[in-house]
Amino acid sequence: VKAVILAAGEGKRIKPHIGNAPKPFTRLLGLTLIERAILTAREAGVTEFLVVVGYKKEVMIPYLRKLERRYRISIRVVVNNDWQLGNGSSALAAAPYIEKDEPFLLLMSDHTFDPDILRKLMAQGKQQKKACLLAVDSDWDEKINVAEATKVSTMGDRLVTIGKGLSSFNGLDTGAFFCLPVLFPALGASARDGDYTLTGGIRKLIEQGNMFFIPTEGLFWQDVDTKKDLRNARTILLSRITGKEGDGFISRHFNRRLSRRLSPYLAEWGIIPNLITAASFAICIVSGLLFTRRSYLYILLAGLLIQFASVLDGCDGEVAKLTFKSSPFGGWFDTVTDRYADIFIALGITYSAWAAASGVIPWLLGTMATLGFVMPSYAKKEFALRYKKPQPKGFIANLIKRDLRLFLLFAGSLVNRQFEVLIFTGAMSHLGVMGLFLSSRRE
Amino acid sequence: VKAVILAAGEGKRIKPHIGNAPKPFTRLLGLTLIERAILTAREAGVTEFLVVVGYKKEVMIPYLRKLERRYRISIRVVVNNDWQLGNGSSALAAAPYIEKDEPFLLLMSDHTFDPDILRKLMAQGKQQKKACLLAVDSDWDEKINVAEATKVSTMGDRLVTIGKGLSSFNGLDTGAFFCLPVLFPALGASARDGDYTLTGGIRKLIEQGNMFFIPTEGLFWQDVDTKKDLRNARTILLSRITGKEGDGFISRHFNRRLSRRLSPYLAEWGIIPNLITAASFAICIVSGLLFTRRSYLYILLAGLLIQFASVLDGCDGEVAKLTFKSSPFGGWFDTVTDRYADIFIALGITYSAWAAASGVIPWLLGTMATLGFVMPSYAKKEFALRYKKPQPKGFIANLIKRDLRLFLLFAGSLVNRQFEVLIFTGAMSHLGVMGLFLSSRRE
Repeated sequence: VKAVILAAGEGKRIKPHIGNAPKPFTRLLGLTLIERAILTAREAGVTEFLVVVGYKKEVMIPYLRKLERRYRISIRVVVNNDWQLGNGSSALAAAPYIEKDEPFLLLMSDHTFDPDILRKLMAQGKQQKKACLLAVDSDWDEKINVAEATKVSTMGDRLVTIGKGLSSFNGLDTGAFFCLPVLFPALGASARDGDYTLTGGIRKLIEQGNMFFIPTEGLFWQDVDTKKDLRNARTILLSRITGKEGDGFISRHFNRRLSRRLSPYLAEWGIIPNLITAASFAICIVSGLLFTRRSYLYILLAGLLIQFASVLDGCDGEVAKLTFKSSPFGGWFDTVTDRYADIFIALGITYSAWAAASGVIPWLLGTMATLGFVMPSYAKKEFALRYKKPQPKGFIANLIKRDLRLFLLFAGSLVNRQFEVLIFTGAMSHLGVMGLFLSSRRE
Repeated sequence: VKAVILAAGEGKRIKPHIGNAPKPFTRLLGLTLIERAILTAREAGVTEFLVVVGYKKEVMIPYLRKLERRYRISIRVVVNNDWQLGNGSSALAAAPYIEKDEPFLLLMSDHTFDPDILRKLMAQGKQQKKACLLAVDSDWDEKINVAEATKVSTMGDRLVTIGKGLSSFNGLDTGAFFCLPVLFPALGASARDGDYTLTGGIRKLIEQGNMFFIPTEGLFWQDVDTKKDLRNARTILLSRITGKEGDGFISRHFNRRLSRRLSPYLAEWGIIPNLITAASFAICIVSGLLFTRRSYLYILLAGLLIQFASVLDGCDGEVAKLTFKSSPFGGWFDTVTDRYADIFIALGITYSAWAAASGVIPWLLGTMATLGFVMPSYAKKEFALRYKKPQPKGFIANLIKRDLRLFLLFAGSLVNRQFEVLIFTGAMSHLGVMGLFLSSRRE
């Protein structure tokens, strides 16, 4: 499915806040609005993009080419020299590039969405072959600037009226459409009447009985027209970062609270998730080296670094979600470096215990504990591969996860008892493999 | 789909070789013929079994109840007291338990098959709604006893004639049918003519134009009537054990040659695959302990035991295939114990090197090598889970697999250089993770 994205307007209201750049360049959590619109559509399954530009096209076009290379996507740029007439003229400019009977998404570059809204539009549109579908929010959030929004009233599954100035209305236009090319003659008819807005074209479709809608059902959307809208969008996007399903106790109640405060800044600073992963890994290596020193201050610092690395370990996934940078490689890299990081920490602690006591016992216990940091996760992965489903929820099998393990080591280092904690968590981890053995047998 | 299995006959020809038990009790690679027929059908997707018994039903029925419990399947036992009339009367005895228009597999308890023959019969039968389909071998192996076989001649997709004494024929009846209940009136009509054989019923279906066939296309089948047939079936079943796709060089060219000779005996002795896995694990633990001794003889013995465990590690999967005992738990247990086994061996060797040289270096190197025995496999599993496909075929990523690692340790122990080999293979293994890192990034 193609997406037509309108990015031709001037954006007068937000202009004072973003300087000289065109409105689609407005940054929201590390991505420009146009970048976010494209990536949202890509996440919903769109593979081809048609972006209509007008205002400041000389900076828009090279930027779109840059996005094309960065995300390895295909963007056809359509220039609308009449953009000042209205956004309907920009939509009409895309007409020559849409095949007969080809359905397409129509999006505004300054609206940001939950990709599920687009998924729902496409699913509904393909299934019922409706001429034109608009996503309508009928239960809008108090933070939405209703005065500035385009309102609609609906009846059954159809739109009845649309306009900014409606006194009676039961929904807001979210700016996300799924249309058949029947839209274009409607826009043309409206233009001949002297109305070059998209709303004008929609009115013609309403007259023809061709304009339908789906409800957003609480899914997030935000038209970014003002600084306040931008802040609101940022707040909502951040609130949508939740933990992973497999998050342990410490992760849920402690690490995530910190990582969710840190991640927006990392996203805004443009730090990519794999770099965060690498930083977390590097901090663990430093921590492992610090543990080999005798002085309590070093041990304390090592412990603090471990806990910091554990928090950072949550940020990579969060930033990836915020900036549409999740990838199988990122997940693989994160998991494998986590294991190596744990190994370095455990070896550092073991070395220190051996240096203090010498003899075979510290090494033997320490090495078994180190392996305990790898084997439960290994056994779970093998389970997932063999049974083609996640590991069972058994208590013992899920007792020691990385968040708890690192937290215990951090706590242990506060009282200079990191080796004892290492042995304990290692033993519990091997017990976890036994638990997994029992639950695998039951399956 | 239900399977009707005929197990009512006396089996006079094989009787002198198997003593007093009924023919379906004849053992072939650790399973009785009836057990094998049931498990072959289960492998092909059958969930309900109808077994017709007659001769020695007083031993057959309790045995079938035992199989029901052992394999947690549902077997309906149908007694045909007229079994001596012919196998058509036994097939007819199943009629009351088949629904109107319900298709079913009809199998002989003394025939053994490739499950793919049954899969093909069901696929073809369901697709085309043919009244009755027989799997026909038109390119039979020289070892098949043609004189004793039921012959057929075919034309197009239909059977034209069937009988033991045909002088002109182009195929052999494999004894595997997929039928609609239209078979039963045909058997009844044949019985009224005084012919109580299944062949008689098939002749009636031929007359009605209701008898079709599919070719076996080289898939294995064997009617076990004589001692020679039994030997032939055993040879063919064994020849079908091939290595796994991921087998390394040593596995393919050395270990598999030995394990394939050993596995039939393990199957015949009734040793279950998980016990073989556990034995291989126990041998590795003993080997790890032996490595801690100074004397060369112990080291040599440890090395030999490692290589033996590596061969045994191939047998569990082979025995599972031969006896239909493959399971996700078996695969999980095998993989996880392999890792722990390697860890024990590596720790034993490391301890010995430390005892000889003392100091931190042997432990540090040894521990890193030990982890090298786990991490490549870990990283590959994570890859398979993230990318939903097996790891890439990169050279470095697949350099050191378990078969090679254990073989090198075995070879190293011959010249008392096991620690050097440990460090080397460990380092190469971590390099493998690096290789996987590079190929993951490329994906």
